[in-house]
Amino acid sequence: MADSFTIARMLVDELRARGVDHVFGIPGDYALGLFKVMEDSELALINTCDEQGAGFAADAYARIRGLGAVAVTYGVGALKLVNSTAQAYAERSPVVVVSGAPGVAETTGDALLHHRVRDFGTQMRVFREVTVAQCVLDDPETAQRELRRVLAAAARHKRPVYVEVPRDCALTTAVDEGAESIAAPPTVDAATLAEAVQEAVGMLNRAQRPIILAGVELHRFGLQDKLISLVGKSGIRFATTIMGKSVVNEELPGFVGVYAGSLSNEMARSAVESADCILNLGAMLTDLDTGIFTANLDPARVIAAGAESLGIRRHVYPGIGLATFIEALCKAELVDRDPLPPSCHAAPDQFEPVSDDPITIARLFECLDAELTEDVAVIADPGDALFGAIDLTIHSRSEFMACAYYASLGFAVPASIALQFAEPGWRPLVLVGDGAFQMTGLELTTAARYGLTPIVVVLDNDGYGTERPMVDGKFNDVHGWAVSQVPDLIRSGQGYEVRTEQQFVAALGAALADTSRLAVIHVRLAQHDISPALERLTRELKQRV
Amino acid sequence: MADSFTIARMLVDELRARGVDHVFGIPGDYALGLFKVMEDSELALINTCDEQGAGFAADAYARIRGLGAVAVTYGVGALKLVNSTAQAYAERSPVVVVSGAPGVAETTGDALLHHRVRDFGTQMRVFREVTVAQCVLDDPETAQRELRRVLAAAARHKRPVYVEVPRDCALTTAVDEGAESIAAPPTVDAATLAEAVQEAVGMLNRAQRPIILAGVELHRFGLQDKLISLVGKSGIRFATTIMGKSVVNEELPGFVGVYAGSLSNEMARSAVESADCILNLGAMLTDLDTGIFTANLDPARVIAAGAESLGIRRHVYPGIGLATFIEALCKAELVDRDPLPPSCHAAPDQFEPVSDDPITIARLFECLDAELTEDVAVIADPGDALFGAIDLTIHSRSEFMACAYYASLGFAVPASIALQFAEPGWRPLVLVGDGAFQMTGLELTTAARYGLTPIVVVLDNDGYGTERPMVDGKFNDVHGWAVSQVPDLIRSGQGYEVRTEQQFVAALGAALADTSRLAVIHVRLAQHDISPALERLTRELKQRV
Repeated sequence: MADSFTIARMLVDELRARGVDHVFGIPGDYALGLFKVMEDSELALINTCDEQGAGFAADAYARIRGLGAVAVTYGVGALKLVNSTAQAYAERSPVVVVSGAPGVAETTGDALLHHRVRDFGTQMRVFREVTVAQCVLDDPETAQRELRRVLAAAARHKRPVYVEVPRDCALTTAVDEGAESIAAPPTVDAATLAEAVQEAVGMLNRAQRPIILAGVELHRFGLQDKLISLVGKSGIRFATTIMGKSVVNEELPGFVGVYAGSLSNEMARSAVESADCILNLGAMLTDLDTGIFTANLDPARVIAAGAESLGIRRHVYPGIGLATFIEALCKAELVDRDPLPPSCHAAPDQFEPVSDDPITIARLFECLDAELTEDVAVIADPGDALFGAIDLTIHSRSEFMACAYYASLGFAVPASIALQFAEPGWRPLVLVGDGAFQMTGLELTTAARYGLTPIVVVLDNDGYGTERPMVDGKFNDVHGWAVSQVPDLIRSGQGYEVRTEQQFVAALGAALADTSRLAVIHVRLAQHDISPALERLTRELKQRV
Repeated sequence: MADSFTIARMLVDELRARGVDHVFGIPGDYALGLFKVMEDSELALINTCDEQGAGFAADAYARIRGLGAVAVTYGVGALKLVNSTAQAYAERSPVVVVSGAPGVAETTGDALLHHRVRDFGTQMRVFREVTVAQCVLDDPETAQRELRRVLAAAARHKRPVYVEVPRDCALTTAVDEGAESIAAPPTVDAATLAEAVQEAVGMLNRAQRPIILAGVELHRFGLQDKLISLVGKSGIRFATTIMGKSVVNEELPGFVGVYAGSLSNEMARSAVESADCILNLGAMLTDLDTGIFTANLDPARVIAAGAESLGIRRHVYPGIGLATFIEALCKAELVDRDPLPPSCHAAPDQFEPVSDDPITIARLFECLDAELTEDVAVIADPGDALFGAIDLTIHSRSEFMACAYYASLGFAVPASIALQFAEPGWRPLVLVGDGAFQMTGLELTTAARYGLTPIVVVLDNDGYGTERPMVDGKFNDVHGWAVSQVPDLIRSGQGYEVRTEQQFVAALGAALADTSRLAVIHVRLAQHDISPALERLTRELKQRV
């Protein structure tokens, strides 16, 4: 079948070989040839309403599957993806941005082709700023090699990459280089590693109250089992960060909660801040992760292993990354400790609604904690949907998703679509504010189109509630939607509008029970009802506006 | 009041001084101080649902007012504006992108602040690719000078610019430089101009059938009156391009129609292509403007004046731009010709609906041509909404708007909001496809919030109709909305669903008559019903996919 091994087909094969079964996107005339090849292949093409939704979906897919892809046309398509790609960069999500482009033959000279900006290189230069590698598949001789180079960079750095396909090249036969030669893993200096491990083990073994801070990079590099094994073997308790929430099952023994400086609950905060040795495994310690830098972590007690760096106290061991280090720790001699205490998450109580009480954020999360089962995956949009969710119990790994660092509003609904494709056994439950829902909430159309069944809980407090405590003005207001009408507009699903605890419990129960269709629950909150965590956070932020 | 002359206040004053009364945007914590100052000023802050809508609105506003502005937060706000800013660049629309940013004091070192991508310069480098000038207002000494430099570049090039305001600088008192010194206009070499005008006048005076091709740059540089005066004085007939449509009243004597190569109607095409001298005034001759380069214009007969260049036949006069050249032509001695014939747009007939006939694109435009009055401004989204609109009669200047070169789907609804703010006397009528409506149509929420009254006609042919004739597949399908339910969702306006000519006439009449609220007319078309112009165009495009 050498004659059908076109550049477009080669691209499909390389994506499939890396676990990509779904590509999100919107076609356009510079990408139609490519889209036709994708549609006729084993890949599922998922059309979203807007490119922004496709970009967020690909990001979410990449977080679960290890690689995601979005395909669009030139200019008007790709340049709508700059923000979602920036988020993937910031939060280490390996997304392949595939853009059609004018044909090589059309772009000689200075033709004013539609969708062009300044010159034909503008788009590539923009994406250089938000991706780790780029290629243009304009040469059948080198196309496969170039693509593999770029995809390897995505896998190595867990960051997005950019692939441009000129439309007159998509159907050109590519040179097949055969099986990919596996690149040798980067060499690690054994003596440096030994010295580092010896120092770390010494610190840990001497400590009376050590703690592990488990971060998002454990998830991105697939090191969750190593963490579980290290915790089990060492008897050291662990906290996660907001970004790292759900990196492992939060019901495991030894879990003390989510640590985030002043955002944390008291148990997590004291366990971490009173520790005499803190083993940071892949936590990025961003401003939100540290409760706007209110985290109080004495560098003299910290061992910090990141994707590409290892620091102990105030010095650095070059060339030692997280994967190498945690593997070595798992093999090291660690002292015996007392058995781990049970997880801080007790099995949640039954939630007893107070019949006519208006529902509050705090009570809503209590209810979710009692009602959500293992097959429900929670996706929290930035804002109080996220802060309130910090103390939700996450039963098994990866059932919680958020963009807790870059924090782009409107991520959660498109992410829920990707999540259900990536893991059909999970039912997504989205928590999103009323403002963010107006940005991307109508991507529920995409869920309807493909028969997906997310439950979307819209937390409506009449505007941008996280900003009001900082600086308030009419600019924080949102013109409210009759959110429960969304199913009528998209001709699919069931809408609910609730104001009381009892109504919320009833709507959530009905939505969970009806597994055949999507649901939208419009929760009318008081305007100034915010979660305790957000109250603490905005007090911090207010001082910095 | 020197103590209140903050950097934010200075920015407000400079925008107001240049005709900006409305700023579109969405707040975020890096921009809250700036937003508060704007809200408390004479500027009207217009909140949109998504930043994309704000960007398109600012672009439309700039096309009418000569300058537009959009204000957002760092990263998650600004990076959503790359596409709309790219369109403003490509189509010469002077938009000021104002972005909040982390404070100068926060960004020393390498802090992982939320919304950050690679480093704190990423966003500025991205915007360098899609704007003509940039500044960071981080120094009270130079802030006003820097801002004026950047705004002058926007005015000179009619292209977007980028202004970044670190949040700890917004409320810092700025040095007031007083009245702006007016920059001397660029000098023109009088001898070069004289030689150019002499050659051009010679060609025009010798010609039997000369024609003027009036382009969009006449509009951007405010030269419409010069065109009218030149046409009146010389007796030379004129055509416009798609991008230049409505540059002047199309009922003026001498108008022969919209010329766009194979897209044109026969009268416009023969008038232009049989001309023995073509005076191109500011037409960009993009692929769409030339009917995908099917325009047949012999360079030996062309005088082409662009924003920054003048070419006659195959040679160039350096340093002579459109404004200088048209002014000189207006003063030159041109031969007397026969009186101008009346405009090709005869007063349209009454539209007589055939009662139960399904409505078609062609008949829908006939109906609009008969029914639309002078106070209705038409905004056409890319696609058949635009091609079908080519032959609509535009009664007075600037009552037609489209992004006919960069062609970003979803421009029209947000543009209609800006248009009604910029010219409250006009009622916007939007023509948009079903696919594009799912991208930005819910910005009607913004119209509802501010009491605007656009009429939105959604041309629903079950998907991306312009692509089907090129390459068809499921990727061209759209999951249809019950569009007439939109007013229920946004709690404002009236919805209509129509399938026949009579229903369309009735709905349009009712929407036009009810000037108190917005209207959405859902027009159900046959899937393969396309306008004759689009049929010609896609035949051309199909050969190039």
